[in-house]
Amino acid sequence: MSERPVTVGLLGGGVIGGGWAARFLLNGVDVRLYDPDPDAPRRLDRMLSGARRAYRKLTILPLPPEGVLTFAPSPAEAAAGAEFVQESAPERVELKQELLAAASAAADPGVVFCSSTSGLRPSLLQARMAHPDRLAVGHPFNPVYLLPLVELCGGERTAPDTVSRAAAVYRAIGMHPLVVRNEIDGFLADRLLEALWREALWLVRDDVATVDEVDDAIRYGAGLRWAIMGTFLTYRMAGGEGGMEHFMEQFGPALALPWTKLAEVPELTPELVEKLARQSDAQAAGRSVPELERERDDCLVAVLQALRSRGAGAGETLATWERRLLATAPGADGAGPIDVAPTGPLRLFSREIPADWIDYNGHVTEARYLDLLGDATDALLRYLGVDAGYLEAGGSYYTVETHISHLGQLYAGDRVEAITQVLGWDDRRLHVYHVIVRQGDEEPVATGEHMLIHVDAAEGRASAVRDGVRSRVAAVADAHATLPRPVRAGRRIAL
Amino acid sequence: MSERPVTVGLLGGGVIGGGWAARFLLNGVDVRLYDPDPDAPRRLDRMLSGARRAYRKLTILPLPPEGVLTFAPSPAEAAAGAEFVQESAPERVELKQELLAAASAAADPGVVFCSSTSGLRPSLLQARMAHPDRLAVGHPFNPVYLLPLVELCGGERTAPDTVSRAAAVYRAIGMHPLVVRNEIDGFLADRLLEALWREALWLVRDDVATVDEVDDAIRYGAGLRWAIMGTFLTYRMAGGEGGMEHFMEQFGPALALPWTKLAEVPELTPELVEKLARQSDAQAAGRSVPELERERDDCLVAVLQALRSRGAGAGETLATWERRLLATAPGADGAGPIDVAPTGPLRLFSREIPADWIDYNGHVTEARYLDLLGDATDALLRYLGVDAGYLEAGGSYYTVETHISHLGQLYAGDRVEAITQVLGWDDRRLHVYHVIVRQGDEEPVATGEHMLIHVDAAEGRASAVRDGVRSRVAAVADAHATLPRPVRAGRRIAL
Repeated sequence: MSERPVTVGLLGGGVIGGGWAARFLLNGVDVRLYDPDPDAPRRLDRMLSGARRAYRKLTILPLPPEGVLTFAPSPAEAAAGAEFVQESAPERVELKQELLAAASAAADPGVVFCSSTSGLRPSLLQARMAHPDRLAVGHPFNPVYLLPLVELCGGERTAPDTVSRAAAVYRAIGMHPLVVRNEIDGFLADRLLEALWREALWLVRDDVATVDEVDDAIRYGAGLRWAIMGTFLTYRMAGGEGGMEHFMEQFGPALALPWTKLAEVPELTPELVEKLARQSDAQAAGRSVPELERERDDCLVAVLQALRSRGAGAGETLATWERRLLATAPGADGAGPIDVAPTGPLRLFSREIPADWIDYNGHVTEARYLDLLGDATDALLRYLGVDAGYLEAGGSYYTVETHISHLGQLYAGDRVEAITQVLGWDDRRLHVYHVIVRQGDEEPVATGEHMLIHVDAAEGRASAVRDGVRSRVAAVADAHATLPRPVRAGRRIAL
Repeated sequence: MSERPVTVGLLGGGVIGGGWAARFLLNGVDVRLYDPDPDAPRRLDRMLSGARRAYRKLTILPLPPEGVLTFAPSPAEAAAGAEFVQESAPERVELKQELLAAASAAADPGVVFCSSTSGLRPSLLQARMAHPDRLAVGHPFNPVYLLPLVELCGGERTAPDTVSRAAAVYRAIGMHPLVVRNEIDGFLADRLLEALWREALWLVRDDVATVDEVDDAIRYGAGLRWAIMGTFLTYRMAGGEGGMEHFMEQFGPALALPWTKLAEVPELTPELVEKLARQSDAQAAGRSVPELERERDDCLVAVLQALRSRGAGAGETLATWERRLLATAPGADGAGPIDVAPTGPLRLFSREIPADWIDYNGHVTEARYLDLLGDATDALLRYLGVDAGYLEAGGSYYTVETHISHLGQLYAGDRVEAITQVLGWDDRRLHVYHVIVRQGDEEPVATGEHMLIHVDAAEGRASAVRDGVRSRVAAVADAHATLPRPVRAGRRIAL
């Protein structure tokens, strides 16, 4: 099995199983899904379209062709022919054991199985499996297609290489596997989440605060830090230059204070459940679950991109995944001759306008037009063979001059594409022209004219384009020489 | 007292008190600080320079002139003449009571006092104060200059308007006050944090995981969500279309499972403290506290800006603060005549290059040059009287054409400024030229030539510039008409 499987089997297609389906499919993996609920196809369709929307914003890199989703009528048929199986059934031991038994009997003996269970120990789940040594827990977090964490935990009979093979699969689809070295109920994350959640329930039950106030106490304060660093590193810093030892000295005694009400679990009386439901309705303020999911996903994408810009934590996971995408993108296989010489302008780049490109006037802010044009130029360069290998060898094109005409407004959600023409070239220069249009429309929204210089990146100065790329540039420029020259090319600015 | 005080008194200048000092000073408020530690000035200086660095990245809007920091030799002298007092001494009731007694005796009776205590009840802290009705708890989170949350809680003797007046002060310096309606030890946030922290300590004590693994279990998963939404809204969504009631039905039973070890507090033996310290050292991997603080602040800034782009939670708090800054920025007082006609090009805009503007080549990515030029144009428009009022009345300038020459590379941390010249104007058009230079250096890194059109934003079409702005444009254009025309103005792109 290569790291990224061709086909996976999924058992269960609820909030978690559907999230797995979306993550695998958008990473180009075919999915065979078993879910007995007749409503599953509709639900999957909705979840998948939400995930597609999020991925369009998450990266500008081209995704692999989407995998194919098929519904399997039984657990055995979901697992047969799959290279990896992920179980995400409801949290009932017997049900999971039964599904895993049926699926594992039908699967190739070498196929790794993971369970999405939030807290059940893998040793329990192995009980009735064929070849139980290839089962581990792979516990993800909602939304599975965006959050990178997956807790990996083996049971008593799990073979060591089951865990490492599962980790490789998860990494290949952009996740961060965290190996839990000791098998305990709830693993690591749910122990922590459950502790906070119990305390939150007490605060609401005792009418100290509403669910909305409890949530605000997290998201305006410590929650912002937790996106970046956990509790231990945070507290180390609170200890100042004395570090953790000093922090424990200062704040350890507070552990003995009656701040938490941890000894008991609040009884889930009908009154308490009703109170929670009522306050939760007020908090949602009429927003449906799909609306809340869109808001959450947009924020998560923005936060992941923010962390990527810092090379921190989950942002580095995203960057690693993008490097994999880049390595497998079209054109990355070296700069051979272009198969079919283009006969018209190139259409190499399209994207949806993200909502955070909008300014106070309600339309796309000026500088983002150069983001579009720059991305269109990057797509052209990849097409011309300027790929990861060419860059590593020190060759690159830098833009030295840009002329933008803003001809129309763009709004959030618009899908635009670039129509690209090479106006001229020589050994060291490349003269490029893009027209940005809404997809399905030829009316220009903006035009960009660019002069690029070929450089030796190590020496930081102009150099001649190298052979593989040169022949591609020549082929495209020759084909484009017959096209009419754009009206706005060569413009100068004047009153 | 106006909402933003002119002078505040601070009692204590540690991690929290120093954070308050930075937030007040950078919001233009003078600070009188009492801290008996002779090392306090050095510590404050270091914290303040970290906060300045973070604020330069946090917003491109001009900050008010920084407040003046003075060290007061006693609590009474810190409070005398202050309009608001914040106490941030170590968590010892007697010490806090003593400081508050001394300071409140010296303060004007109408001055509001807040305590930064993490968990002590305000009723206790009021005990020895003069006019105890003006004390509330105002509990912030580290780093105070970046995290918006402040929990506001009154004691038995607190007057209702003490809480609302404190909330107004906090809002004026960009914070999100959360009123805790019931006085309990630990308020809301620390109850939740403490529950999670106790469980984390158990996991490390029992060798289930290291501090690094526990932290990763948060920051790659639920921590990303917590920057956006708290536990209740998250779980509502996990309940799918059935909402919170359905979630409780599904996951309520897990509360009875032995996932947490909450009944006891782990004994802080020397061995446990030593283990925590050792693992924490490994996690820090040689990074000093100031280094960790810079990394944390850069990430927090990026996350806050990401959330601002979504209008969500703490991002909306940031946006609200920026609207306040904009309303009080120079030029916001209406478009009167320019006092002194400029005799040379204008220098209205400068900023530091943030680290997340850097591409894989190690220098500023192409599109960010238009961010710089666009911001320089915005600064010119504000100078010409296009302020919040003018925009609200529907007048605005849109860029229709841009010509950029990239003449040099920029790197993270470079401070650049724009040298701006008006090349021409008429009723509907404004022809602008910027040269971007490193501060203290006249070598151009980039030039930008721009044509702007005056529009009626409501009708979305060109319109004549209105009177107040017109006279300012005329004054600047007249002065600039005598300047030499830039060499690169009017350039066209060609091989």
